[in-house]
Amino acid sequence: MGSIYDTDLDRNDANHVPLSPISFLTRTARAYPEKLAVIHGSLRHSWGEVYERSVRLASALSKRGVKRGDTVAVMAPNIPAFVEAHFGVPMSGAVLNALNIRLDAEAIAFILKHGEAKVILVDREFSSVIAQAVETLETKPLIIDIDDPLAEQGDLIGEIEYEAFLKEGDPGFEFHRPTDEWDAIALNYTSGTTGDPKGVVTHHRGAYLNALGNAMEWDLPHFPVYLWTLPMFHCNGWCFPWTIAAKAGVNVCLRRVEPFAILSAISEHKVSHLCGAPIVMSLMIQLPEKERPTFDHPVAMMTAGASPPASVISGMEAMGVTVTHTYGLTEVYGPSIACAWKPEWDELPLKERARLKARQGLPYITQEDLMVANPETLEPLPWDGESLGEIMIRGNAVMKGYLKNPATTEKSFAGGWFHTGDLAVTHPDGHVEIKDRSKDIIISGGENISSVEVEDVLYSHPDVAAAAVVAKPDAKWGETPCAFIELKSGSDVTPEAIIAYAREHLAHFKAPRLVVFGELPKTATGKIQKFMLRKRAREMG
Amino acid sequence: MGSIYDTDLDRNDANHVPLSPISFLTRTARAYPEKLAVIHGSLRHSWGEVYERSVRLASALSKRGVKRGDTVAVMAPNIPAFVEAHFGVPMSGAVLNALNIRLDAEAIAFILKHGEAKVILVDREFSSVIAQAVETLETKPLIIDIDDPLAEQGDLIGEIEYEAFLKEGDPGFEFHRPTDEWDAIALNYTSGTTGDPKGVVTHHRGAYLNALGNAMEWDLPHFPVYLWTLPMFHCNGWCFPWTIAAKAGVNVCLRRVEPFAILSAISEHKVSHLCGAPIVMSLMIQLPEKERPTFDHPVAMMTAGASPPASVISGMEAMGVTVTHTYGLTEVYGPSIACAWKPEWDELPLKERARLKARQGLPYITQEDLMVANPETLEPLPWDGESLGEIMIRGNAVMKGYLKNPATTEKSFAGGWFHTGDLAVTHPDGHVEIKDRSKDIIISGGENISSVEVEDVLYSHPDVAAAAVVAKPDAKWGETPCAFIELKSGSDVTPEAIIAYAREHLAHFKAPRLVVFGELPKTATGKIQKFMLRKRAREMG
Repeated sequence: MGSIYDTDLDRNDANHVPLSPISFLTRTARAYPEKLAVIHGSLRHSWGEVYERSVRLASALSKRGVKRGDTVAVMAPNIPAFVEAHFGVPMSGAVLNALNIRLDAEAIAFILKHGEAKVILVDREFSSVIAQAVETLETKPLIIDIDDPLAEQGDLIGEIEYEAFLKEGDPGFEFHRPTDEWDAIALNYTSGTTGDPKGVVTHHRGAYLNALGNAMEWDLPHFPVYLWTLPMFHCNGWCFPWTIAAKAGVNVCLRRVEPFAILSAISEHKVSHLCGAPIVMSLMIQLPEKERPTFDHPVAMMTAGASPPASVISGMEAMGVTVTHTYGLTEVYGPSIACAWKPEWDELPLKERARLKARQGLPYITQEDLMVANPETLEPLPWDGESLGEIMIRGNAVMKGYLKNPATTEKSFAGGWFHTGDLAVTHPDGHVEIKDRSKDIIISGGENISSVEVEDVLYSHPDVAAAAVVAKPDAKWGETPCAFIELKSGSDVTPEAIIAYAREHLAHFKAPRLVVFGELPKTATGKIQKFMLRKRAREMG
Repeated sequence: MGSIYDTDLDRNDANHVPLSPISFLTRTARAYPEKLAVIHGSLRHSWGEVYERSVRLASALSKRGVKRGDTVAVMAPNIPAFVEAHFGVPMSGAVLNALNIRLDAEAIAFILKHGEAKVILVDREFSSVIAQAVETLETKPLIIDIDDPLAEQGDLIGEIEYEAFLKEGDPGFEFHRPTDEWDAIALNYTSGTTGDPKGVVTHHRGAYLNALGNAMEWDLPHFPVYLWTLPMFHCNGWCFPWTIAAKAGVNVCLRRVEPFAILSAISEHKVSHLCGAPIVMSLMIQLPEKERPTFDHPVAMMTAGASPPASVISGMEAMGVTVTHTYGLTEVYGPSIACAWKPEWDELPLKERARLKARQGLPYITQEDLMVANPETLEPLPWDGESLGEIMIRGNAVMKGYLKNPATTEKSFAGGWFHTGDLAVTHPDGHVEIKDRSKDIIISGGENISSVEVEDVLYSHPDVAAAAVVAKPDAKWGETPCAFIELKSGSDVTPEAIIAYAREHLAHFKAPRLVVFGELPKTATGKIQKFMLRKRAREMG
């Protein structure tokens, strides 16, 4: 107070504009109106068209009474309307609630009711689950069908189809911009493993900054060709609808995450960038070489959700794809932590590179800080690569909080840090490495076993395609490690051989007591659903 | 008000951190502590060292009583201490006042008094002018000498030398971070052509965003090697001390902007990026080929202050340097407008490319908006490439205002836009092109003549190295165009031939009536000082 710089130097309309990713669209539509923005089958939209369609969407929503702070839900795969919703919905002042297309009617009904959605945009493939969910709601939202020409099935259930709805909109509409960058932009429900899902509310400021953070971290150049392998319903596609707009790139849409379709799109459209869980990379690698569409341009893939194993990194490199490992949660806008790679590491042997790349790393330049600390005292732990604590994050790419859930919000922000629930160590070079989710620690005879450590060993077995280790209740030891394994096709390895292999590479008590072969249950984003495996392990107990 | 998103979802320490470029240093020092940050002669500093030295500087300043909202001035060429001051001064809570090293004692004294500098860091080469300036001040600031080993002359005049001062600082100091991102970070005086200089006050938020904007616009990758050809005292080196920290790059320092030194540094240190006015590029090109240090890696140069002529663009391309043209003013953090280049333009003939590149273009992705409008009514003018109006800018990379100058601040922000004073047209593709500074229009016989248009023609003459056209008072016509021209060495062209050439390419009334050969007066940043030429033209009248 009272310095010469505090007088007559206030904010005004000329020097202060609330940060919002809407600005990326308006700028790119002005700079590159004719540039390609969206590819979907034979459809092509320019940035000028995406802009016009987004404004029309905002206008049509407004005409139907949607206003600031209302919720607009979307149930769709990665299609053009979903890209537009990332702009058109906020441009109506509303909050975008992207629904996980793998959820059942009951879960969807809970979300629609809790989030108070006024409008739902639904792709016809998912109309039946939406119809079922809406059936149970007292207040019926306006349903808008998206009749995507590439959808293979599903009825139209809504009041109006999306294209007709856009026609209701005025392309000259003076769309909404937030008057406060703290205004909500999106509502994303976490697929909680226990209890009801929580509604993560994010803000315009964070969306703007993390979208730039993606570009900064990834050295994303202008005009990237971005393939939509990562679902847009997952933390708003890790903010990439906004990042790609900021860089005037191309959104290559994809209804289904299948390895042949992915590689075909990379080859046909010269895709330069894509995102996805390590399982997506595994799928790509496992496609027999003869069936693989080929390409000879450089491709970069960002992954998160699990550490990419060495075999996956080398398999991708052999295809010409460079892997960047990031870390995040819905609460921090998807990835906002990344393994900050050093060029000199390129020269290391694969195993060493994989070890370094597996680390979650450091905050994006646009995220403020992270630490591994004692979750009770918030005392940071030493950077010794051994002291296990909880990852805490603070910065501008952290959610507003959980909707209608002040108790959980307060708990998750205790002490001025967001508590991730992930257990990690800090290495002497400051990089953080996750050892486990709090709930993934197996306690056997009083000893902590990191399920990740056991999985890493299992993944190194040549016959293992995917592995997940969970606790199995045990009368004597309390818990013992139980491994669920997906084998590579053609393998005839036995469970006993796998256990023997694990004992060779791990302390005896850490090796699984039981190994079960079979397909692993996965989320829509390719994450292995450990809670289902935990249930199975308990039932086998 | 009153939406579900406005309840129990407030800002807190976990999810809201004031934006500040200080964060770029703390993050890069954590991620890449051992990476090279500064080169200066034989000196090398890592990012860990720059961090420690900046914290020490902040601590030492605090120990001497410097506090939030105080002013710390720096009078230095592009040396390591100046990089550190861009962090250490804000980390003490103070505001960095970078002084133009070309100013005389009287102008410096005015600035020190007006800005109320508590401390001055001065490179020994400039100690005598500082001593003279301080002599006239009633309240004497603390003077800290920077005894740069590469300085060729100058006495030490201060109380303590910079390195000793740093030793007073505590490397574990809990440095200041702004509690409000609107806090002032820098004070830069514009070299006003009339009247007293104005003190442009910028804020942490804008510095953070424009630093990212530089990286986004230029597609700046990690670890750039950046050559300091642009003075850091010029709009804080266009925010590049902060941009280079965000990208963990190398600051190659340079005391003097000389073509041989520039090309040597590019060759020796594999410089990837540099900035400077077109005159710097002209100097590089004019160095005889035999004397040029060579390099074969790609180099990118950002220019501003004047449009790069076709000959300069092609000369740079022949050297392997790609030119990006940007536009800005001290009031908008240096460049925050850029010619948004389209890849398809690469294929056009040189002349066409030069014409497109000469345009000032469009706002950075981090600047909000610009328009060409009637300065009285703020009515935007048609995008017809012809309607001349004033460039207006609004966004987050716009100053807080002018220090202790509410009347001028208010005027410059009239109607919620910053008035640049530059006259321009908007082309049908939305790109803006400057036709003149308001004061650079020559009015002859009631017709407006754009001095830029005449200069463009003069630059196209093979013997012309630099040209500036100003108004010369004329009894009959009111004003007539008068050209001052710097010829290439060895030229024997006559003024008459130049006038004849101009008449060939321009409407007769636009061609200069008088042509004067000789060296042109330039500012420290290489801008031609037209006000001095105007004075000469008046005297010749």
